[in-house]
Amino acid sequence: MAILLRFTRLSLKSTFRWILCPKYSTVLTAVGREKSGRAPSVWSSQLIQHRCVHRKGVGASPDNPGAAPPRLPFSRVTQEDVSFFRELLPGRAITDPDLLKSNNIDWLKSVQGNSEVLLRSKTTEEVSQILRYCNERNLALCPQGGNTGLVGGSVPVFDEIILSTSLMNQVISFDSISGILTCQAGCVLENLSQYLEEKDFIMPLDLGAKGSCQIGGNVATNAGGLRLLRYGSLRGTVLGLEVVLADGRVLNCLATLRKDNTGYDLKQLFIGSEGTLGVITAVSILCPRKPKAVNVAFLGCSSFQHLLETFQCCRGMLGEILSAFEFLDASCMKLLENHLKLTNPITECPFYIVIETAGSNATHDEEKLHNFLEEVMTSSLVTDGTVATEAAKIKALWSLRERVTEALTHEGYTYKYDISLPVEKIYDLVQDMRGHLGDMAKNVVGYGHVGDGNLHLNITSPFKDPALLAAIEPYVYEWTSEWKGSISAEHGLGLKKRNYIYYSKPSEAVALMGNIKAMLDPKGILNPYKTLPDDLH
Amino acid sequence: MAILLRFTRLSLKSTFRWILCPKYSTVLTAVGREKSGRAPSVWSSQLIQHRCVHRKGVGASPDNPGAAPPRLPFSRVTQEDVSFFRELLPGRAITDPDLLKSNNIDWLKSVQGNSEVLLRSKTTEEVSQILRYCNERNLALCPQGGNTGLVGGSVPVFDEIILSTSLMNQVISFDSISGILTCQAGCVLENLSQYLEEKDFIMPLDLGAKGSCQIGGNVATNAGGLRLLRYGSLRGTVLGLEVVLADGRVLNCLATLRKDNTGYDLKQLFIGSEGTLGVITAVSILCPRKPKAVNVAFLGCSSFQHLLETFQCCRGMLGEILSAFEFLDASCMKLLENHLKLTNPITECPFYIVIETAGSNATHDEEKLHNFLEEVMTSSLVTDGTVATEAAKIKALWSLRERVTEALTHEGYTYKYDISLPVEKIYDLVQDMRGHLGDMAKNVVGYGHVGDGNLHLNITSPFKDPALLAAIEPYVYEWTSEWKGSISAEHGLGLKKRNYIYYSKPSEAVALMGNIKAMLDPKGILNPYKTLPDDLH
Repeated sequence: MAILLRFTRLSLKSTFRWILCPKYSTVLTAVGREKSGRAPSVWSSQLIQHRCVHRKGVGASPDNPGAAPPRLPFSRVTQEDVSFFRELLPGRAITDPDLLKSNNIDWLKSVQGNSEVLLRSKTTEEVSQILRYCNERNLALCPQGGNTGLVGGSVPVFDEIILSTSLMNQVISFDSISGILTCQAGCVLENLSQYLEEKDFIMPLDLGAKGSCQIGGNVATNAGGLRLLRYGSLRGTVLGLEVVLADGRVLNCLATLRKDNTGYDLKQLFIGSEGTLGVITAVSILCPRKPKAVNVAFLGCSSFQHLLETFQCCRGMLGEILSAFEFLDASCMKLLENHLKLTNPITECPFYIVIETAGSNATHDEEKLHNFLEEVMTSSLVTDGTVATEAAKIKALWSLRERVTEALTHEGYTYKYDISLPVEKIYDLVQDMRGHLGDMAKNVVGYGHVGDGNLHLNITSPFKDPALLAAIEPYVYEWTSEWKGSISAEHGLGLKKRNYIYYSKPSEAVALMGNIKAMLDPKGILNPYKTLPDDLH
Repeated sequence: MAILLRFTRLSLKSTFRWILCPKYSTVLTAVGREKSGRAPSVWSSQLIQHRCVHRKGVGASPDNPGAAPPRLPFSRVTQEDVSFFRELLPGRAITDPDLLKSNNIDWLKSVQGNSEVLLRSKTTEEVSQILRYCNERNLALCPQGGNTGLVGGSVPVFDEIILSTSLMNQVISFDSISGILTCQAGCVLENLSQYLEEKDFIMPLDLGAKGSCQIGGNVATNAGGLRLLRYGSLRGTVLGLEVVLADGRVLNCLATLRKDNTGYDLKQLFIGSEGTLGVITAVSILCPRKPKAVNVAFLGCSSFQHLLETFQCCRGMLGEILSAFEFLDASCMKLLENHLKLTNPITECPFYIVIETAGSNATHDEEKLHNFLEEVMTSSLVTDGTVATEAAKIKALWSLRERVTEALTHEGYTYKYDISLPVEKIYDLVQDMRGHLGDMAKNVVGYGHVGDGNLHLNITSPFKDPALLAAIEPYVYEWTSEWKGSISAEHGLGLKKRNYIYYSKPSEAVALMGNIKAMLDPKGILNPYKTLPDDLH
């Protein structure tokens, strides 16, 4: 089939993302699908201004729900406290402001704290002693992994002590029969991937930030990423956790069992709690075998309805080997062509799909993919397409999906939203938004993970435009809420989105979350100002 | 290959399980791997005696940790209460003792309560009003689904009001693009399976009890079952829950999203909480596509080490199509032959494996299976085997694994344990136990789910033997605990196992479970005497 032979080599020059930060309550939503370890290269005056807002703690308002609330009445760190930490962690209780700089600011450079103490624990026992001490002294604490989050969850807001897990980077065990890995929380995701690759396994999650992000942080934020469609969420793959509670008690739920129905599954409390309920110190996780074959197809559809039908057909015909089903619209493609000079490898279409297969038999996978492509081409669901099996070509096709974020930064201001919706609805939001905004927006584009029902809605403007923003919000949140969507599909709430929670969760649920927080951390010392809305205080 | 052609037709006569109940603290552990809707046909005098123990509530003791504790000081149901319920649920507030009989006793007929009121709600609002009323009146309540549990979790212990979800049996929605089903809690699993089958989907779980068990009960007990190896646990596949809390508040977390990171994932609290934290009224769940091809292989290994190596090879070569990897030992096979007159379809071996594949392309699956079998035969990991692709033959091969439980009932007394361990360790326990017990036991046999690290250890004796029991317990629990295993892999704790929890969970974790219970159900009206140990009261 011609489609299988055709391939245009795409530019492989490295991705470079410019982060523009137009207004606190929106930018903060998400700068892209991937968490990235790379710091932005442009630091606009707006950013500094926003950092000042945080430092001052002027409080959130209806116009700025993401701003920091006033500082809560925690104790301030004394010289005596520092002495205690220095004795506990010789050479690992850092107070040099220069050394603390990068830990005080998030990688988006949008939230900056003013912590004066960074503690670099190596063992669970140390974490336990630190928390016991802080709890007794009423000292607030910000647990920090790779600091790659997008919602200001991993940096202090004021003077919280930073507890870094970076030195807790040891693999504890790996069972090559069951595929269960147990390791300390500070292991970097990419290092774990490399460790497993040699053993013919892979991590069940993959993120753009893998070079910096740590497994403890991944679990604490319930990271989604690129493999969720295939291997499911961390709710299922994480088998055990060791957690230090706010008062220093160590909760050892570090099971390495696929099945365990003895009482309530406490580890679930800490998955996705963003460090507000306990500090994850070790993780056990179920790892899949490394696939022997990977293929990527880049296809075009004439309508989103055809794209959805292609998805259905794909699930049936690719079945167990389907590992990703992503999309971008024609507006995204134009941005890629105009700003990044990428070449569209197929004929122009309203919608483009990236499909990835991963399986144990290359011949079988290629045959399945061939049959599927024949079916969707014959039935005109897909109008054109190209397939890659080699690593470099696969990377090139993937870049058409992955570099949309970068292309958008060349547009001026970008208002970004990371929305989860019933899959049938994800593009309706883009179209509705286009109609709703009319000429106010320069571009309204949609891309994301069809397989996960996760849309990245991006609205561009040549300049920061309060009138445009007022037209977008709360419209976008109300629309999402009306369709029972999530206003944060994978990034969490952190500092920036904490007050938006009611768009996706009923007040009874939020109140119960507050009860859980009060039960596990009565003094509220763990990652204060994050995840839960201000009205719970 | 000869192995692919060879097949011996096996007896297909229906399975019939006889339940013998030697001693409370052991039998109750598990009668088999499957929850079954079928009632046992033999009701020994011991059973009645044990029921009496429950009725009297003489309290658990070190010799009998599964016995019921004394009744807690809940209110007793008055005529006024009954009038309230009759008005709320016209014709569905049952007080006729004859009609209540089957709801008062579990299907093993090992636990019998004495409830005088059965409430058959149809809507969430009714459940809410019932709970609000009961909470105000301090009336205890036992939520009941299909009543197929094995640990006495689904029946009242004393006079708790039974709240049945049987009439809450409506499918709310199904999205054939995302495969997300939303339904009321009382939908019977098999009905949901049939509903989905017409739409070319399947439920992500399957149980022996599917004809009776309800999805709400499945979720409340975090049921494992036959498809866990392939589709993961309910922790990952359940996307949303609607739950009524003890005070009648409705917690609507009935999301139909694959991704949602807005705050703590409250639904996880209720998955596996056995009705002690809230009443699940509706469920949304992610359903996989129906596989187009299913194959079953029955193989023999000369050692457990070879079996483990076969498992590793299988995971690599069958990869994404592997859906079950089960085993039984030679002692099990002898019981099948002696008591059930089943024929071993292959030559005699120390260990037998049942492997199932499920995939989207029959030709590919058969080829993968062929290659795998050639590999394990050539390398002598497997000494003999046979394969089935037709439904009847598949069922026959499966019956060799599934009827072990039945065969065991012909042995006299059977002491049964449902243990989860690191997969390398599962057969060590059987061998250790053989050495430990010596001639005291008639038979010590092992079978179960290798893929899930779940062992069913069964020890038989011609008669009830307190000396044998004393040799087994607490040895088996200590052994399991030493290897960080679970003393209840999939059946939960219910009434019978609640006091064994410390063998698998540290006291800090159990204490925290108690805090969660106190937070969500301060009066303790929801399914009292279950899941949590007596010392928490």
